[in-house]
Amino acid sequence: MSPDERKPQLVADWQSLQRIFIRPEDEASKKTLVKYMEQILFGLHDFLNQHVGVTEEISLVRLAEEYTDTIINKNPQKKLGDVISDIINEIAPRAVNVASPYFIGHMTSAIPFFMVHLKAITAALNQNVIKLETSKVLSVLEKQILAKIHRLIFKFDHAFYDTHVQNVDTSLGVFTTGGTTANITALWVARNRLFTPCSGFESIEKDGLLKAMKTHDLERIVILVSRRGHFSLKKAGGILGIGSDNIIPVDVDDHHRVDLKKMGRMLHECHLDPHTRVAAVVGIAGATETGIVDPLPALADLCDRYGIHFHVDAAWGGPVLLSEQYNHLLTGIERADSVTIDSHKQFYMPMTSGMVYFKDPHVMDHIVYHASYVNRPGSVDLGIKTLEGSREANSLILDSALKIMGTRGYGLMIDHGIRTARHFADEINKRDMFDLVTAPELNILTYRLIPPSTRQRLRQADPDLKTEINQQLDRINITIQRRQREAGKSFVSRTRLKIRPEDHHDIVVLRSVIMNPMTHMGIILEILDEQEAIFESLKERLSE
Amino acid sequence: MSPDERKPQLVADWQSLQRIFIRPEDEASKKTLVKYMEQILFGLHDFLNQHVGVTEEISLVRLAEEYTDTIINKNPQKKLGDVISDIINEIAPRAVNVASPYFIGHMTSAIPFFMVHLKAITAALNQNVIKLETSKVLSVLEKQILAKIHRLIFKFDHAFYDTHVQNVDTSLGVFTTGGTTANITALWVARNRLFTPCSGFESIEKDGLLKAMKTHDLERIVILVSRRGHFSLKKAGGILGIGSDNIIPVDVDDHHRVDLKKMGRMLHECHLDPHTRVAAVVGIAGATETGIVDPLPALADLCDRYGIHFHVDAAWGGPVLLSEQYNHLLTGIERADSVTIDSHKQFYMPMTSGMVYFKDPHVMDHIVYHASYVNRPGSVDLGIKTLEGSREANSLILDSALKIMGTRGYGLMIDHGIRTARHFADEINKRDMFDLVTAPELNILTYRLIPPSTRQRLRQADPDLKTEINQQLDRINITIQRRQREAGKSFVSRTRLKIRPEDHHDIVVLRSVIMNPMTHMGIILEILDEQEAIFESLKERLSE
Repeated sequence: MSPDERKPQLVADWQSLQRIFIRPEDEASKKTLVKYMEQILFGLHDFLNQHVGVTEEISLVRLAEEYTDTIINKNPQKKLGDVISDIINEIAPRAVNVASPYFIGHMTSAIPFFMVHLKAITAALNQNVIKLETSKVLSVLEKQILAKIHRLIFKFDHAFYDTHVQNVDTSLGVFTTGGTTANITALWVARNRLFTPCSGFESIEKDGLLKAMKTHDLERIVILVSRRGHFSLKKAGGILGIGSDNIIPVDVDDHHRVDLKKMGRMLHECHLDPHTRVAAVVGIAGATETGIVDPLPALADLCDRYGIHFHVDAAWGGPVLLSEQYNHLLTGIERADSVTIDSHKQFYMPMTSGMVYFKDPHVMDHIVYHASYVNRPGSVDLGIKTLEGSREANSLILDSALKIMGTRGYGLMIDHGIRTARHFADEINKRDMFDLVTAPELNILTYRLIPPSTRQRLRQADPDLKTEINQQLDRINITIQRRQREAGKSFVSRTRLKIRPEDHHDIVVLRSVIMNPMTHMGIILEILDEQEAIFESLKERLSE
Repeated sequence: MSPDERKPQLVADWQSLQRIFIRPEDEASKKTLVKYMEQILFGLHDFLNQHVGVTEEISLVRLAEEYTDTIINKNPQKKLGDVISDIINEIAPRAVNVASPYFIGHMTSAIPFFMVHLKAITAALNQNVIKLETSKVLSVLEKQILAKIHRLIFKFDHAFYDTHVQNVDTSLGVFTTGGTTANITALWVARNRLFTPCSGFESIEKDGLLKAMKTHDLERIVILVSRRGHFSLKKAGGILGIGSDNIIPVDVDDHHRVDLKKMGRMLHECHLDPHTRVAAVVGIAGATETGIVDPLPALADLCDRYGIHFHVDAAWGGPVLLSEQYNHLLTGIERADSVTIDSHKQFYMPMTSGMVYFKDPHVMDHIVYHASYVNRPGSVDLGIKTLEGSREANSLILDSALKIMGTRGYGLMIDHGIRTARHFADEINKRDMFDLVTAPELNILTYRLIPPSTRQRLRQADPDLKTEINQQLDRINITIQRRQREAGKSFVSRTRLKIRPEDHHDIVVLRSVIMNPMTHMGIILEILDEQEAIFESLKERLSE
């Protein structure tokens, strides 16, 4: 067989099919496969260098029109090389350049380039950590890395971790596919912990919610969380049968943290009501919209007082623990019963990876499932206590990244983000055209454009006029965000927030997330300048 | 800066940190990064060539002892190159060689080598399809590929797909992180569909299970499924608040399919009970343990009669639709209300990827969630209707693979698996030392080793002696499976099954899954020979 024939080609027959499963031995074919990887590493890179923001200015309607064929080709259409070229030339320019330092609108950002190598390794090994028989060392490694992060959070002593790091009967946490399933897992455990077995009732997991509540004469299970809680918490309430309306939003205080007085009052009321049970209180460590950290020690006190499961959603903020300068901002997290951390956020892993941790190494027994072909009791099979089934070995990526960067490397990124966000806020405060809405406790801030004259009018307006002015500002800020995104040079996001707890309406704010270490103040000045320029052009158009 | 200094290195300071985010421009550094990819493609490959089965013979206890350090290093420990070498030299040999054609024990197998390239692309692009603003064309592409697979399953006409393929208000399905979350999603929708709004009650999702059931005067929600149903269905019952005990296992018939008479009887009983509601009937298209396909048309008839949501768990069997020769085995799947298909199984994608499809493009509205910073109503944001949150763009991998292989390429693999499994069964039937327990309807079969004399004794034994003999056979088969796995040359799995529905006890069977196109009959003969040889050595040891 000539080297050329060995190249990956159209899979039309049995011979070519087998060829794609045998990695080639000859140098020419190997070279071709390596060349493709080179294109992936640097061809996609070209796109990342040339475009910023939401890249090509093709409208969604036009784009959608090109993706309407719904019949799968019977015969092979393209060789691997052509597929890769097409992705580089046609898909990538229409994707979003989340890696741009000008893309500061969402929690998706650049990742270290070695992450692509590490992801390729997990794909090449294709281990499945649901069970030892398809993962072996990777199950052991997952337990180790879970213990390392658990220690970072809960800071138990050496003896504790020696006991549990490779203990087949206990679990310190589990890798999930993201913060959402991590939160669902934590609240699933919290729900199941509520009810002890009694005559005719074994567990909520087995008997169901109705029987559990009837047996315990309950009308309502609730979970309390700041109004700024991630929407996955409401979703968890819906999925778990608690009801999303029973995920009770508690107002925030002047600092946009959960209002402790209100939280305390609500907990007290629930405590007095014999027919209501609180499954969990959720504290946020890095709110999605504002980056705010709730007063975790005070929340822990409240949970202690009433004996309530304390969950901390640190999907965003968790890795701040790696920063010597700022880890104090998360004080109190060690008192949580469970903690969510996303690894594809500030651990800078590729999509998709999350984690959930439990202080008590036995509490995950509340969600144990066995199957006789895998996951037999007493085994190291990680699929026994997890929402998900088959899972890739993401722990290998996190373990490798920590080896390459150390906590110091991660700390540098965290420090940069928080520092830059604070300088960003200073700049907003300096400019007449902007108001800071939520200051960056971590590396997220919200603000809005407001012309000085309007600010003046707003101050003196009666409630009705205030609403009118705010609605006008909403429209302006929506337009600015949209125009800036469409211009394709940079990207901030927007959301709606109350400025003060007593306000009646949510206002539109621009939202920035500083996680890309390449985002520096020069870029931020450009972004603010562009927003002002868009506003000026709007004014001109209006006055024409 | 010299080329050497530009090489990826220890991230101890700000400068090196930034470097890992800027892909290098100089040729020397680029070469290094490409060389690493070469090592990943072919260095890991060496391991895959040299080892088979569960690779290195290190005991789990010894292995665990090496992974007990629980403190994260503060400073960088290793360069990327060293991390990769370590993975190749230390991790890979202790992982499981799921890619070996001798590894026929689980649903994890070799994948075409181009999958590693495609996974690397998704990591390099790092799009998040939770929302358009972090994915753009990838959201559009996901909708297209979902429509393609939907069409393969449900076969609606052109007009239907033209209407829905890019419709922002409807959903034909969603990519999940696996079959488990796909099943949970399907049953979540089925649960929510049960109850229509009425005075004081909006939905089970918002109001919770208790209120829903009280409002409708119900005592019990159940889901019916063959005893061979995947354990994720019980887990779904637990999570959704229905109770895992209310996922009712229905016995199988002589062909190991769900017993239609018993299913019919149970549905009728539920129908007569005003306090019980059936949320769904689940048909299996490729049981995890046996590969058996339930009688889908008859189950669809039953569901029609009682107006019940019909879910088909085709996590394993779904891609059989791509085989012209065997797609008739899945007849009836087009009548399902929802269908689970795993893409990391017989679509040969890397871990982790699943999909769930819904016949009615509006039914996913039952699980809709919005958030004001993303996923605004009326947007293409795919995160609106999904269990998971952030998600990588796995649709790009499936789309590319279908372009490279076409339905014919996939069909060849399916055909090979089913054909080989049938020859495997013929061989077992030919050999005196084995009994076939479940014949391969698809590409999975179970069997056990049973010496001819024992077979004879078993036939004539009274019930007590039967049990005793079966327990002895269980021990033998467990030992054979374990010894073969430990020998490291090949791997089959084991589980427990009833041979006939009327049997009292589950017996241990060996289980083979033929999905690797490199697994041919020669290999299977070797595996059976080895099992016989292990048995002979056991006998010798016993008689010594």
